[in-house]
Amino acid sequence: MIAYFNGSFLRKEEITISPDDRGFLFSDGVYEVVRAYGGKPFKMAEHMDRLARSLRETRIDFPGVADLAVAGAKLIARNGLEAADSILYFQITRGVAPRKHTFPDPPVRATAMVLISPAASSAEMREKGVGAILVPEFRWSRCDIKAIGLLGSVLAVQQAKEKGAEEAIFVRDGVVTEGTHTNVLAVFNGHILTHPLGNFILTGVTRGTVLELCRRLGIVCKEQAFRGEDLNRASEIVITGTNKEITPVVRLDGRPVGTGTPGPLTRRLQAAYSALVRGESAS
Amino acid sequence: MIAYFNGSFLRKEEITISPDDRGFLFSDGVYEVVRAYGGKPFKMAEHMDRLARSLRETRIDFPGVADLAVAGAKLIARNGLEAADSILYFQITRGVAPRKHTFPDPPVRATAMVLISPAASSAEMREKGVGAILVPEFRWSRCDIKAIGLLGSVLAVQQAKEKGAEEAIFVRDGVVTEGTHTNVLAVFNGHILTHPLGNFILTGVTRGTVLELCRRLGIVCKEQAFRGEDLNRASEIVITGTNKEITPVVRLDGRPVGTGTPGPLTRRLQAAYSALVRGESAS
Repeated sequence: MIAYFNGSFLRKEEITISPDDRGFLFSDGVYEVVRAYGGKPFKMAEHMDRLARSLRETRIDFPGVADLAVAGAKLIARNGLEAADSILYFQITRGVAPRKHTFPDPPVRATAMVLISPAASSAEMREKGVGAILVPEFRWSRCDIKAIGLLGSVLAVQQAKEKGAEEAIFVRDGVVTEGTHTNVLAVFNGHILTHPLGNFILTGVTRGTVLELCRRLGIVCKEQAFRGEDLNRASEIVITGTNKEITPVVRLDGRPVGTGTPGPLTRRLQAAYSALVRGESAS
Repeated sequence: MIAYFNGSFLRKEEITISPDDRGFLFSDGVYEVVRAYGGKPFKMAEHMDRLARSLRETRIDFPGVADLAVAGAKLIARNGLEAADSILYFQITRGVAPRKHTFPDPPVRATAMVLISPAASSAEMREKGVGAILVPEFRWSRCDIKAIGLLGSVLAVQQAKEKGAEEAIFVRDGVVTEGTHTNVLAVFNGHILTHPLGNFILTGVTRGTVLELCRRLGIVCKEQAFRGEDLNRASEIVITGTNKEITPVVRLDGRPVGTGTPGPLTRRLQAAYSALVRGESAS
């Protein structure tokens, strides 16, 4: 695959990261993942806005976010993926400098990388649903920054995998916040609840799209926290994300959620989301 | 400088990290820093034990920790640093694999790197002391793992630097835990207190050495937590670390600590530590 690295297009295999890159030494970087449907990036502007915010919050000086979006779009064509679904991965780090915790002084050029890969189909997960587990939160408290410091998420989702589940959902001080790479929504008495925005969750682009679809479809969705034990009486649970789209959680900690099959609100939202990403009007 | 990378000795400039290295994409790795005095690594065994523990806790499969210690020692000679003070930096990541949060399946070879650099003298900081600031803890709750996910520490210590201080000291739920790359000890009524071991602080090798020196010197040192506001009545504060050794904190949030100069217990411990690292018997 052709990739983009610090201003150049090149084969991914040609990219060499310095051992002094602060992304490698300090996880001093941020990222975004954008899904393209039929060659068209979905919600690119929202992802780039979030990337710019992550850069501001971490004070990484990188003025070229708009150029990066253009580079991402070019990668679709350069790799012959105009008709396919693909995943664009954007990563920016604070650059290359001898190892010292404080920012490089004088500043150095940020490292900017865009990778592309064909998207794996999420159809089976969307159709059948997945299992999830609850885990106590142990990550940092700036989950609103999409930072590459993902070891906590890695360890949690691996634990899920080993229990036959697809996702780990974090519980902070009793409250359900988000998954390792998804937001979490649950249905109680016909209303959808999801954790409010703030520093404990990522401002999920798919989450935002689902809130918008709820408004259009007349589904009540409140940004209101709920507790881990509340999920025992949820009739539906979904996880949302760029890759996972709207994936039903049909087993939580090994027990069925609701009927143990994807529920009616989940199905309505999935249908509307599918139409939206393909450029059809939501029903 | 000659470095070590995945079994080979090579010039540091020749090391190329893959864009798919999990250290770069997920901060999925751990590290150690060892200081050599006059060409002799100090407490190498303790550092390698801690590295092995970090690997176990993150479940990174790397059987070659002992080989890495040997490689580190060889780097001193290969770079002609037998008579100098130098810093050895060890980093191990979970290896190179297409980006997916869960561990690579089947597993891949871990990435192992050892870098060396001449040690900057800490004499001035040790002699005059430094400033520090208190910051609310916002990192994860597994600070006992020496993981490369250091963005929280980077942001905190940069804040310190911009306030003219050298270190940021974290306060978690009111309690002083540790610095961004140091442990913290404070003197109250002639006794030294420092946060107990556990998941909120790193098991500092220098911290352990200082506890041992206190026993030898008849200084009372208790592993007992204290609060941020308690530091207003501390007569001495020190930060300890492989690089910082025993550095007095003489200003906290801009106000003098005790007399505003390094105190008597600090001086005794510094002298004993200096003797120890040079292979002389502690007085």
